Amino acid sequence: MLSEFELIARYFAGPAQSAAAAVPGAASGVVQGPGDDCAVLTPTPGCQLAVSVDTSLADVHFPADAPAVAIGHRALAVALSDLAAMGARARWCVMAITLPEADDTWLAGFAEGFHALCRASDVALAGGDVTRGPLSISVTVHGEFPAGQALTRGGGQAGDVLAVSGALGGGRGGLEAWHAGVRELGDPLLAAYLLPQPRLAAGEALRTLAHCAIDISDGLLVDLDHLCSAAGLGAELDVARLPLSAGLAARLGEAGAREAALCGGDDYELLIGLPAAQLETARQRLAALDVPLTVIGRLRQAPGIAGVDAALLRSGWRHFPEAAS
Amino acid sequence: MLSEFELIARYFAGPAQSAAAAVPGAASGVVQGPGDDCAVLTPTPGCQLAVSVDTSLADVHFPADAPAVAIGHRALAVALSDLAAMGARARWCVMAITLPEADDTWLAGFAEGFHALCRASDVALAGGDVTRGPLSISVTVHGEFPAGQALTRGGGQAGDVLAVSGALGGGRGGLEAWHAGVRELGDPLLAAYLLPQPRLAAGEALRTLAHCAIDISDGLLVDLDHLCSAAGLGAELDVARLPLSAGLAARLGEAGAREAALCGGDDYELLIGLPAAQLETARQRLAALDVPLTVIGRLRQAPGIAGVDAALLRSGWRHFPEAAS
Repeated sequence: MLSEFELIARYFAGPAQSAAAAVPGAASGVVQGPGDDCAVLTPTPGCQLAVSVDTSLADVHFPADAPAVAIGHRALAVALSDLAAMGARARWCVMAITLPEADDTWLAGFAEGFHALCRASDVALAGGDVTRGPLSISVTVHGEFPAGQALTRGGGQAGDVLAVSGALGGGRGGLEAWHAGVRELGDPLLAAYLLPQPRLAAGEALRTLAHCAIDISDGLLVDLDHLCSAAGLGAELDVARLPLSAGLAARLGEAGAREAALCGGDDYELLIGLPAAQLETARQRLAALDVPLTVIGRLRQAPGIAGVDAALLRSGWRHFPEAAS
Repeated sequence: MLSEFELIARYFAGPAQSAAAAVPGAASGVVQGPGDDCAVLTPTPGCQLAVSVDTSLADVHFPADAPAVAIGHRALAVALSDLAAMGARARWCVMAITLPEADDTWLAGFAEGFHALCRASDVALAGGDVTRGPLSISVTVHGEFPAGQALTRGGGQAGDVLAVSGALGGGRGGLEAWHAGVRELGDPLLAAYLLPQPRLAAGEALRTLAHCAIDISDGLLVDLDHLCSAAGLGAELDVARLPLSAGLAARLGEAGAREAALCGGDDYELLIGLPAAQLETARQRLAALDVPLTVIGRLRQAPGIAGVDAALLRSGWRHFPEAAS
């Protein structure tokens, strides 16, 4: 087995990695990358930092035998999604990876998926830690926004329109597809599950328009409840308007598709509350990014979530406990 | 089992936690703590950020049945030690914890150890992630220093004095004590192993005096090799001058104690290179912090490490592979 130092050098600190990460300099804000006790970063004057950490554990958050390139992509994507939900511009990440063994082919694939998303998101991998043990990846991401402009969960107001980016249910649908034996990453549902696209550009575009935002990692109902609780409000959902992932109804049936969209989790789309007057601007900005924005309800004074089958509401939160952790 | 949300609320976001973490505000720089998609932090104008992540895995980095209070302390301490080695002032941390179960007593102990060190180090726990699985804790720490003042590994110059803070070998000695059945955290060797004290104040005090620094996590020989490689230099060690932890020779014998100090790892002391002219000032600053500083050799042009038994040098790096990961 390669030593920790050799591993770091080969896959996470060498010139083969993302351009943004490889070259310390003014553009990336990386003064010192991997190879010292700490990374040294230059924050942008006048900005605040958004920081979030997410752990991806084999056979909890992804199948242990998923393609390594997807595992690398996904571990970073789920963390970046939190930056998107804050309206932050992604800047840096550090990664702690625990590996059962140093398999060269696996590591090359993992690094390819991770670094490709670094490049696509303009994120520099600034440091990391390698440990031997059950496969697990913890990624801490750092973003920035002008001071005071954080897009928080708690800013919603009664009457705000609720809208979601992209389509829902694909995370759950892809998991079902995987269990059914689908292995082709070109399958839209499997791609939604294993290769989610963090909505970074959309989050930035919405930062000054929306009152509140959250990313849908635990399922629409759970995450909507977070938005409502944080603002002390309730919501009305129009379940018939939920944008369903392509192919979802074909795989899960109509009712199953709607349930996946409400409770499935792992969609990593943005759920926002915004004034109706801003809706058209928001839609145009996201259309320019090729991201649909669909109105699915509104925030209201009265507590609770209206418009959802009561049985689903009761059981919905814990419907897929593996996906909710 | 408590849900992720309940866990976070009870142990990591409530008023019971460290004062620094509990109260967002100007002093801590925490605008938004746990409870949103990201933590929001205000960097100090004119400062650069030092960031490091460390994973502590049960039965690799600590015994799974160690006291929870020590596991909480240690997981944060080993990460903070990297900030110390950079001369950074500790500011914030985020923690990803993977837990096999939500045992209330264990979590209360873990949180006590973690939060106590947060308070002692003036660090705010700004966010986290909780996952169910094999016990593992990844802590990402954030520190600051005036721009351009990072204390790096690579700044050493030929002729620089090599010195270490505190005493060496305690990490290995404590592990041996644990294996021998010692369970009392008051035991000095066990405390050195399970409750290491990150040298944050010492690191800050040395920042403008030393040319280079590293924390001794992998063992003196391995970490000295990092310092030398980063500067393109070699070193002479005076092994007879190594400051040995109290009780180490009694437990391991003279030769075993020296070997533990050279190769044992887990000591989390600072190894620095500094101009001889700064030695007295450095000693006085650390004495004011109750931290001894001992000269153990010097950097030199010629490559390699002189003064150490050749057999130890060859085998030393991998002598305790569990401790070196």
